[in-house]
Amino acid sequence: MAPSLSIFFLFIITFCVTLTAAAAGHFSLQTFFPRPAYQSLIKHAKTRKPKLPFKTRYFPQTLDHFSFHPKSSKIFYQKYLINTQYWHKGSPIFVYTGNEGDIEWFAANTGFMLDIAPKFRALLLFIEHRFCGESMPFGKDSYQSAKTLGYLNSQQALADLAVLIRSLKQNLSSEASPVVVFGGSYGGLLAAWFRLKYPHIAIGALASSAPILQFDKIIPWSSFYDAVSLDFKDVSQNCYEVIKGSWAELVAISTRKQALAELSKAFRTCKSLHSTASVLEWLWTAFVYTAMVNYPTEANFLKPLPAYPVQQMCKIIDKSPSGETKLSRAFAAASLYYNYSQTENCFEVEYEVDPHGLHGWHWQTCTEMVMPMTCSNESMFPPSGFDYKRFAEQCRMKYGVLPRPHWITTEFGGERIEKVLKRFGSNIIFSNGMQDPWSRGGSSPC
Amino acid sequence: MAPSLSIFFLFIITFCVTLTAAAAGHFSLQTFFPRPAYQSLIKHAKTRKPKLPFKTRYFPQTLDHFSFHPKSSKIFYQKYLINTQYWHKGSPIFVYTGNEGDIEWFAANTGFMLDIAPKFRALLLFIEHRFCGESMPFGKDSYQSAKTLGYLNSQQALADLAVLIRSLKQNLSSEASPVVVFGGSYGGLLAAWFRLKYPHIAIGALASSAPILQFDKIIPWSSFYDAVSLDFKDVSQNCYEVIKGSWAELVAISTRKQALAELSKAFRTCKSLHSTASVLEWLWTAFVYTAMVNYPTEANFLKPLPAYPVQQMCKIIDKSPSGETKLSRAFAAASLYYNYSQTENCFEVEYEVDPHGLHGWHWQTCTEMVMPMTCSNESMFPPSGFDYKRFAEQCRMKYGVLPRPHWITTEFGGERIEKVLKRFGSNIIFSNGMQDPWSRGGSSPC
Repeated sequence: MAPSLSIFFLFIITFCVTLTAAAAGHFSLQTFFPRPAYQSLIKHAKTRKPKLPFKTRYFPQTLDHFSFHPKSSKIFYQKYLINTQYWHKGSPIFVYTGNEGDIEWFAANTGFMLDIAPKFRALLLFIEHRFCGESMPFGKDSYQSAKTLGYLNSQQALADLAVLIRSLKQNLSSEASPVVVFGGSYGGLLAAWFRLKYPHIAIGALASSAPILQFDKIIPWSSFYDAVSLDFKDVSQNCYEVIKGSWAELVAISTRKQALAELSKAFRTCKSLHSTASVLEWLWTAFVYTAMVNYPTEANFLKPLPAYPVQQMCKIIDKSPSGETKLSRAFAAASLYYNYSQTENCFEVEYEVDPHGLHGWHWQTCTEMVMPMTCSNESMFPPSGFDYKRFAEQCRMKYGVLPRPHWITTEFGGERIEKVLKRFGSNIIFSNGMQDPWSRGGSSPC
Repeated sequence: MAPSLSIFFLFIITFCVTLTAAAAGHFSLQTFFPRPAYQSLIKHAKTRKPKLPFKTRYFPQTLDHFSFHPKSSKIFYQKYLINTQYWHKGSPIFVYTGNEGDIEWFAANTGFMLDIAPKFRALLLFIEHRFCGESMPFGKDSYQSAKTLGYLNSQQALADLAVLIRSLKQNLSSEASPVVVFGGSYGGLLAAWFRLKYPHIAIGALASSAPILQFDKIIPWSSFYDAVSLDFKDVSQNCYEVIKGSWAELVAISTRKQALAELSKAFRTCKSLHSTASVLEWLWTAFVYTAMVNYPTEANFLKPLPAYPVQQMCKIIDKSPSGETKLSRAFAAASLYYNYSQTENCFEVEYEVDPHGLHGWHWQTCTEMVMPMTCSNESMFPPSGFDYKRFAEQCRMKYGVLPRPHWITTEFGGERIEKVLKRFGSNIIFSNGMQDPWSRGGSSPC
């Protein structure tokens, strides 16, 4: 049986402060900020093309649902996967609201929908998010500039879902089929928001690890990294303290003349390092992502990992020989994330690949998806703040646009969203593992 | 006391078939279609600048809420009227969701909100619709082409409301104030849709004469004109038959050589007519608009009119001397609409003025607000169908864009919208007079 959705989607939308710390080729405690976590995912995820029980289809989708310029009506082809083997006319339609990657990747990792489809005689749909995978409105030029990327945002994506689902039901002559949407992480946000904005299309939503409260000032900005830290601290106080102390050792090394050579050797990099910040990011990613996929079974969503990988990491740290530095212990723990399968002889710390078409998320964080994240003194990461002005300026320099930090809470609800959800009898299930950093910090209403 | 909202907003969003019947300079039964009714309103409404108990403010509004091109973030100044005289911090905020005209016009005719404000200690807001009145995103070039007009639509208008209301509440340090939205006709649609899409901002809506079911194929396309006809028929069978028979007489005259001169004289036009179709439109407008503002008291929304003006029109028809033609009786009845105040020595049948900034509605009908309307054999108007292809082609020729006839029902709900409203406990009051053509035909759920 495939793992349940609530456990399997704990995805990647962390963003702390700066876009250029690593690019600057050095770091200090002042610039000791994590880069967008998704970048690390891009770097390390492996391409998998599993055989999936779906047929692939392409839907002629409208480029801009919310304006009526002559070019707004341009059509692009949105990919979706469909499984009709259990379906009978009139029975439910289960829709996965695709998030920031190619749709096969999510389809391959959402066993829950396949598990329950026979019982409900459900039709299964996995709809790819615009600007992801093959669903590129401007082909290979889609990411050229803000002129093309301007159409990449959550509201347009929700409208895509509405148009596609309605059209499909009509073509199937099954308008009465109830629709339930499913999604994890950003896909979970989309599922919850779709139910809120399109209640005439979806009767309910299962939103897993959806950080619906992570915007604006709804919850403390340190929630996420505090929750990651707690996951490690709960396993072992020593483990938490070793990781927390490792950053200072890294900073100390980075001031030495031979820092890059020394770190390249210590971290067994395949190629010589150009920046000591890469090491910070590499370690950081390992701890954060492992906390997000701390499943109770062996699994392979971001990386192949054992059951309870946080516990396993802490076991490595706690059992390491006395006399080893904190940094070398942290490296040994992080190696579990990057090499549980024992297939790596060295680590590609700086060279990125993007097997899942994830590069659009950065644009979204620079426009609508502003999720301020900081690291408090209680976290196991170096303390950091959120400098909005600096962040906005970096976005402006990169894309020529400024973020709209209050837009998501205006469009979908902020402080009062929980009240609204209750009042509405919203039929939204927010499913989260108890140790999920997206839930533990309160960023998702359980 | 000002008239109640439910009676006072019966506005003008009729659209039957062709855009060019009158422009063609002739008509036959085949092209015997009403032009957009709003055009007649433009033609005949008088400028009034009443002294209103509001202060005028301008809000820096975002041009395009749903895309992130560099130019999307352009700011324009959106006008709103505010009355704080009854308000105490924390008490309710009543918002009129401005529709297709300048905002003073609606403020001057929504006595209901002013009437109840003291009881609720409510703050009153009247927010002007983008591209109306002074709220022009591109100044005098706003209507230049689809490139500028592309930003004129209901979703952008709803987002404007959300952004403005949220900002104002923050500035007033009164985030907890409950917001109730009010609107009539298209403004009623906006009020209902705002409550549906932004339940975290508005706790309820009073949507008066909102034709929420007038889209796609939810109700029979002939509903509206059948309802107008019934209003006359209910008063007098003879009245209905005279009006119904008058069109054939008009067609007969229009085939004569001296038709224009003859009609100019018979209809006491100020200037010689260029098109006999104008006469059709002039009569048509009088009957349709009078049915829409068939208030039980003397009033002056579209025009100064007596109480129960439909009854008064039928009285004129029924009491006219025997031997008079049906067309001349129809003319006499229509004159009540255009000259109840007895100030007109002649009629401006063809020359349009636009005192209320209403010209954006036509664009909206050619893009999102596709409300198919036909005239059945039972109506008192010449039978007509709705030729979508022809309509779409006319829109394309005029604006360079094609309508999206199924978009409104996809975005806001179609056949199932009534179920959704009930399930949600939506807090939307759809208020309609029993004779309201927008309600009588079932286009608005009571």
